[in-house]
Amino acid sequence: MDVLLLSGGSGKRLWPLSNEVRSKQFLKLLKNETGDNESMIQRICRQIKIAGLDSSLTIATGEAQAEAIQNQIDGITRADILTEPERRDTYPAVLLSCAYLYYEKRSSLDESVAVIPIDPYVDNNYFDLIKHMGKIAEKSSEEVILMGIKPTYTATGFGYILPSEKHVFDESNNTKYMHVQKFIEKPDADTANKLIGSGALWNSGVFVFKLRYIINILKEKYNVKNYSDAKEIYSKLPVNSFDYEIVENAKSLGMVEYTGMWKDIGTWENITSVMEDKITGRVCTDKKLQNTNVINELDIPLVAMGLTDTIVAASPDGILVADKNAAHDLKKYLKDDIKRPMYEARRWGEYKVINYCAYRDGLKALTKQLIIQKGKRISYQMHKKRDEIWTITDGIGKLCIDGEYREVKRGDVVKVERGKKHGIEAIERLEIIEIQMGEELTEEDIFRFENI
Amino acid sequence: MDVLLLSGGSGKRLWPLSNEVRSKQFLKLLKNETGDNESMIQRICRQIKIAGLDSSLTIATGEAQAEAIQNQIDGITRADILTEPERRDTYPAVLLSCAYLYYEKRSSLDESVAVIPIDPYVDNNYFDLIKHMGKIAEKSSEEVILMGIKPTYTATGFGYILPSEKHVFDESNNTKYMHVQKFIEKPDADTANKLIGSGALWNSGVFVFKLRYIINILKEKYNVKNYSDAKEIYSKLPVNSFDYEIVENAKSLGMVEYTGMWKDIGTWENITSVMEDKITGRVCTDKKLQNTNVINELDIPLVAMGLTDTIVAASPDGILVADKNAAHDLKKYLKDDIKRPMYEARRWGEYKVINYCAYRDGLKALTKQLIIQKGKRISYQMHKKRDEIWTITDGIGKLCIDGEYREVKRGDVVKVERGKKHGIEAIERLEIIEIQMGEELTEEDIFRFENI
Repeated sequence: MDVLLLSGGSGKRLWPLSNEVRSKQFLKLLKNETGDNESMIQRICRQIKIAGLDSSLTIATGEAQAEAIQNQIDGITRADILTEPERRDTYPAVLLSCAYLYYEKRSSLDESVAVIPIDPYVDNNYFDLIKHMGKIAEKSSEEVILMGIKPTYTATGFGYILPSEKHVFDESNNTKYMHVQKFIEKPDADTANKLIGSGALWNSGVFVFKLRYIINILKEKYNVKNYSDAKEIYSKLPVNSFDYEIVENAKSLGMVEYTGMWKDIGTWENITSVMEDKITGRVCTDKKLQNTNVINELDIPLVAMGLTDTIVAASPDGILVADKNAAHDLKKYLKDDIKRPMYEARRWGEYKVINYCAYRDGLKALTKQLIIQKGKRISYQMHKKRDEIWTITDGIGKLCIDGEYREVKRGDVVKVERGKKHGIEAIERLEIIEIQMGEELTEEDIFRFENI
Repeated sequence: MDVLLLSGGSGKRLWPLSNEVRSKQFLKLLKNETGDNESMIQRICRQIKIAGLDSSLTIATGEAQAEAIQNQIDGITRADILTEPERRDTYPAVLLSCAYLYYEKRSSLDESVAVIPIDPYVDNNYFDLIKHMGKIAEKSSEEVILMGIKPTYTATGFGYILPSEKHVFDESNNTKYMHVQKFIEKPDADTANKLIGSGALWNSGVFVFKLRYIINILKEKYNVKNYSDAKEIYSKLPVNSFDYEIVENAKSLGMVEYTGMWKDIGTWENITSVMEDKITGRVCTDKKLQNTNVINELDIPLVAMGLTDTIVAASPDGILVADKNAAHDLKKYLKDDIKRPMYEARRWGEYKVINYCAYRDGLKALTKQLIIQKGKRISYQMHKKRDEIWTITDGIGKLCIDGEYREVKRGDVVKVERGKKHGIEAIERLEIIEIQMGEELTEEDIFRFENI
């Protein structure tokens, strides 16, 4: 069985900790079995390994996340990381990934593929059920096997699976599942209520099918003959979910029910319910906090007093203070206010925006603190619309400006005028205060060159 | 009648908006009658003017606040600002101020003096009652006339006034007041309860007396003959309140009751109850906030959702999230965490600390944004334990380093090594990013020189 993990989404639902580049699946808000912090992606990869499914693990993601994923899963499991040419939706992602499995990894057409989302917080036996779904997909004639979850409220953000009444049971393979009468993606509340009344289950987002099923679609519908073809048609595929494009239109679906722990932890309400540390960062509280989580990633102190059922989260991107029952609406209130990431973990270290001013004449000044890990370097680059002033506050670095090298250390100040190529490597861990000044201060005004 | 306003206190009770140097009385959290923001001190000065008491207004305060007071009351009223040689308590402050009124301003010994605290949020008729108290002080033989407030709960932070049962009424002057049986400063809860049961009132903190009364104490107890004597003995006077030193020991006290609006707005719970703007700064909210105040002075967005009875306040000094009923305990939780002010309004402009790092080898790096108003300058100074790097991000300045002048403008970088005298004047409004690096980064490591 091939396992395909889809890691996407900019994750504004966990703002201000998550943002465009720091997706929710990388936040180390959980704990592993030895008490160390782990992220959603680290947890699921650890569980995939425990289930023995790691030998065939592929993670499909956008370019922006590929490095962060590799950094996070190092030491947990190995995986092929498949970089999508651009971010679209789960339908194009699954098609491309299946082409990769068949044409590049040479998986068998009779092999089952399990598509697994990253959000759910689940028990290890979830993966045993996925293995069982693999057997069903391989032995039955159902196009896709779904995993159903008993609804706990009238959700309108999930798909609903209405099973038929009889179990299908194949003695020889010990596979037991139900035919699906009807699959309805994201119904309105009335329909959802009726579905729940008729015994429908939520769709967990796990899809298992024979590789042949998707490869046939690629061949017949898109005339794909090899992996290059698949990459080429990728950008023309509808930006739509696998649920709408495939599952709603499938001729025959099977379903098994999962009854263990299952929580969509992509929302504040749910993730706080599984976080062991209620307080993180520079926080003082009185003894009167009840069912309250406080996370402070800022350098300034946060005092929390007398709160009940509250989420407080502060990061360089912003501050959220919300009643746990109100936080699901968060996305609505973030539209225009979030202009650029204020914090990013990068392959070379991290940066944090500490000040920003826009002046009347159009000039802007932005101050960042950069931390470059020992041995790492910032790519050799040039800006057209800004000057930069670097003040080294700690460490030793090897600086290159327009091809000339020199050593810099704490206390040194470097002026990088617009148009000059520049790069720096940390001989010892570097901390730099960078002041950018110019008429346009964006991540787009970076022209990268081959390292020299 | 002379009016003496005491402006002191570091005001940690409104943290993080107030701090050591930015006292609560300067925060523009209120609104005046035309809807503009005003601070506590602006409000009380406006009310004093409306009452016609501004012709004899003296404000006693510490050196750190004198400039801020002048800035705030400009355009509202005129006042003599009396700078105390050092911050002590209200007993030394009142004695020094009375010496100033008598020896310097030549007030008559038969004139009454009204000492008025800044904290209470009151109606204009409060000042009519104070005028009435002045008449009583001048015509009766009571040493001090107090203003009583009907208690609304068992407070242990106030003084209690137990009046005698009979009113004293002087037909000719239309003055009516009660003798005071007993004055008890800050009793424990049991005693306070008993006092309330016996009909005691809270002491409002308004004291009215004849100038002669205090001048006699200065002469007889401290041998003061002129204002210089008073300044000299000031530092030897007990650091104690007027309530303990004078009122508890007075031979005879009078009292009138004030029945209008009276709120001690020096606490979060109370000030939020009179704030018209529930939301200030860069804040997004859903429609579900109830009895909640959100103040954001940071540049990053704050999202508040579904909160009830909550105070959220964010400033460069820190973040407070508190249930309104729990916030009175705030002071307890601030002990060690608040090391230095992160924001200060100064006579030349303002600064904000935007980053701070302490490295393992003892070196520290602190980054500030400075704004120097046009025509103003930073005093000519020198540091022994730090280097500074100034990057001019906006404006034009006249820089002086070790006696040498030069013009600096946007984009210029200036290194000021330790031991070098330096100062800067803003020809046009200046914005500077200052990076301090050294083993000790304190406001004490500033050696000021005469301007050259």
